[in-house]
Amino acid sequence: MRTQVAIVGAGPAGLMLGRILERAGIDAIILERRSADYVLGRVRAGVLEQGSIELMDAVGIGQRMHREGLVHHGVELSLDGDPHRLDFQHLIGRHVMVYGQTEITHDLMDARAASGARTVYEAEDVGLLDFDGEHPRVEYRKDGVTHRIECDFIAGCDGYHGISRASVPLGALETFERVYPFGWLGVLVDQPPVAHELIYAHHERGFALCSMRSPTRSRYYAQVPAAERVEAWSDDRFWDELRARLNPQTAAALKTGASIEKSIALLRSFVAEPLRFGRLFLAGDAAHIVPPTGAKGLNLALSDVRVLGAALVEFYGERSVAGIDAYSATALKRIWKAERFSWWMTSLLHVFPETGAFGRRIQRAEFDYLVGSRVAQQSLAENYTGLLD
Amino acid sequence: MRTQVAIVGAGPAGLMLGRILERAGIDAIILERRSADYVLGRVRAGVLEQGSIELMDAVGIGQRMHREGLVHHGVELSLDGDPHRLDFQHLIGRHVMVYGQTEITHDLMDARAASGARTVYEAEDVGLLDFDGEHPRVEYRKDGVTHRIECDFIAGCDGYHGISRASVPLGALETFERVYPFGWLGVLVDQPPVAHELIYAHHERGFALCSMRSPTRSRYYAQVPAAERVEAWSDDRFWDELRARLNPQTAAALKTGASIEKSIALLRSFVAEPLRFGRLFLAGDAAHIVPPTGAKGLNLALSDVRVLGAALVEFYGERSVAGIDAYSATALKRIWKAERFSWWMTSLLHVFPETGAFGRRIQRAEFDYLVGSRVAQQSLAENYTGLLD
Repeated sequence: MRTQVAIVGAGPAGLMLGRILERAGIDAIILERRSADYVLGRVRAGVLEQGSIELMDAVGIGQRMHREGLVHHGVELSLDGDPHRLDFQHLIGRHVMVYGQTEITHDLMDARAASGARTVYEAEDVGLLDFDGEHPRVEYRKDGVTHRIECDFIAGCDGYHGISRASVPLGALETFERVYPFGWLGVLVDQPPVAHELIYAHHERGFALCSMRSPTRSRYYAQVPAAERVEAWSDDRFWDELRARLNPQTAAALKTGASIEKSIALLRSFVAEPLRFGRLFLAGDAAHIVPPTGAKGLNLALSDVRVLGAALVEFYGERSVAGIDAYSATALKRIWKAERFSWWMTSLLHVFPETGAFGRRIQRAEFDYLVGSRVAQQSLAENYTGLLD
Repeated sequence: MRTQVAIVGAGPAGLMLGRILERAGIDAIILERRSADYVLGRVRAGVLEQGSIELMDAVGIGQRMHREGLVHHGVELSLDGDPHRLDFQHLIGRHVMVYGQTEITHDLMDARAASGARTVYEAEDVGLLDFDGEHPRVEYRKDGVTHRIECDFIAGCDGYHGISRASVPLGALETFERVYPFGWLGVLVDQPPVAHELIYAHHERGFALCSMRSPTRSRYYAQVPAAERVEAWSDDRFWDELRARLNPQTAAALKTGASIEKSIALLRSFVAEPLRFGRLFLAGDAAHIVPPTGAKGLNLALSDVRVLGAALVEFYGERSVAGIDAYSATALKRIWKAERFSWWMTSLLHVFPETGAFGRRIQRAEFDYLVGSRVAQQSLAENYTGLLD
């Protein structure tokens, strides 16, 4: 087989890159280790920045998002039960859109199916070869048969545990990491959300987040120690703990029920540099992980492939390598700003055993400063809704 | 002896409180362990916030400050040699005044001498007694004779190592502390400053600060490990190290010379709560220490005694305890915001061995974000020039 761009991974990054290329008439094959159903079954948050919303529109798949997505003009922050609303619209004239990652994946899959572009699901033993030269190749097994794809470029969009970053020669990558001593216990429930907007709550018992997927499906999170097992958390225990971390009015209004999904995600900051090795590019979680506190993971993945897609379109359209040469540095500037914001918001809102009483007072002071300062609120708002680059 | 307020410590906090009380016709005696010459010999920075400038004017001793002080409309930040000027005037319409702590002490001493108010220097073995009741007393020895002062209130303005905080019963104080693994090696030199404004420089070799006392006297600092001995630093070694941390143009313009003072100050964040125990109040360094990065120490001391002075004037003028009851909480709000800012600016600009490569990238991202965001610059500017409460 031959294609122009071989994309590894059919999550939102890989599918979006495929969509950008397809609309520019560039041929791409997407390889995905899992089945389409498995990919669609992954429950992931989705708070879209303005830039992500615009990208969905730009590639012609924004209709359902605008119909079903929830426009949020602000969020509530709460510290030890003191609530404070940040009105993004009022502060900086911008908003975000709550629209699940699964829905975006769905929309992109549908568009890809309609276009006839090739996606290979359940591609096993994917191998990336010769990307340090002019003629990279990708090999994979499917139904017991080994296939080979000749291509111009490989885009590694296969996540943190994927083969793309692992294929880069030892020593060519520099990695940066911070592992937090806690995770988020998340519960999905078919109940209306407790509030119209997200509530980020810091409490001495730990962080809590009230979020939602739709007007009838809610997603709640509670900070737990990194070593915690999900089996230790009955639904009742979770709801009791969540209520204890919210302010009394919110706790009283909470509509609980049987969880339809419950899992623990560990928090990690991670960046691999650079994002390009010859003709292999890394994008999204393959290159970087943020803790979920700032809702930046999906947005970063989409902004990576927006930059990468434009670079590839420029390469094929104008035979210019300027874009692909600049990709890594351009994307990393934005990535590190989002890493910083995600780290900062995580630091503000979680309980850190190691920073002790001084750290707690600094968190309180940061919250008090934020509540009293319009420019501090604007700074949070511009980061949360997405820095314009 | 009898007075209304016994003030322990004749640094800027104690002298300023004395000045505020004197102008309201309230009698106060100041006790100081050291001699007047010793107090005046202490070399300390002086970057005055708007509120401190206004306080100097309000108590009638601002004339020399306005004549000799240097109005600064901004500062330069530099990261790994990239300079960026923050223009406070342009960002938020405010400025700071560079006027040494020693000069303020001088002005306050002169005013106190002219007023005839009592100051006892070289007061030994100061003891604070019965401040949990209605009739506190202060005892001290002078020239071998023990003296006793009967008073209504005691104001502890005697610094971090003073007797005031140490006199509070064990268990009544809660303390919060962070000790940094480094200090500032400071050099004073009779040379014009390298720039008209302060330069805060982050470099992989460590933090550096170019500051000044006057148009002909400069003060430079370099981050050194906490265990460093000042004897290990010849003038030449210091100037070489400083140049290596500045951008090349600044390094080339640096006018060096024989140091007239050289010392290492360790960096520490510290707060003791509350600030009141019966009829004893703590103010300034007696209650809190900030790392010097944000230039907040002197300003916090002055804002503490501004609040405390107003509370005492209210007490004597209106027989109302509202002010003295609120003093601790009011002052602590501001103190913690300044602690947060000082901690943040220290974190941004120093090299922290323990945060590793990830921490360095976060510092770079913070700097890049700051340089690109007007609201982030405004946030720094409003903190640096002093939050209005």
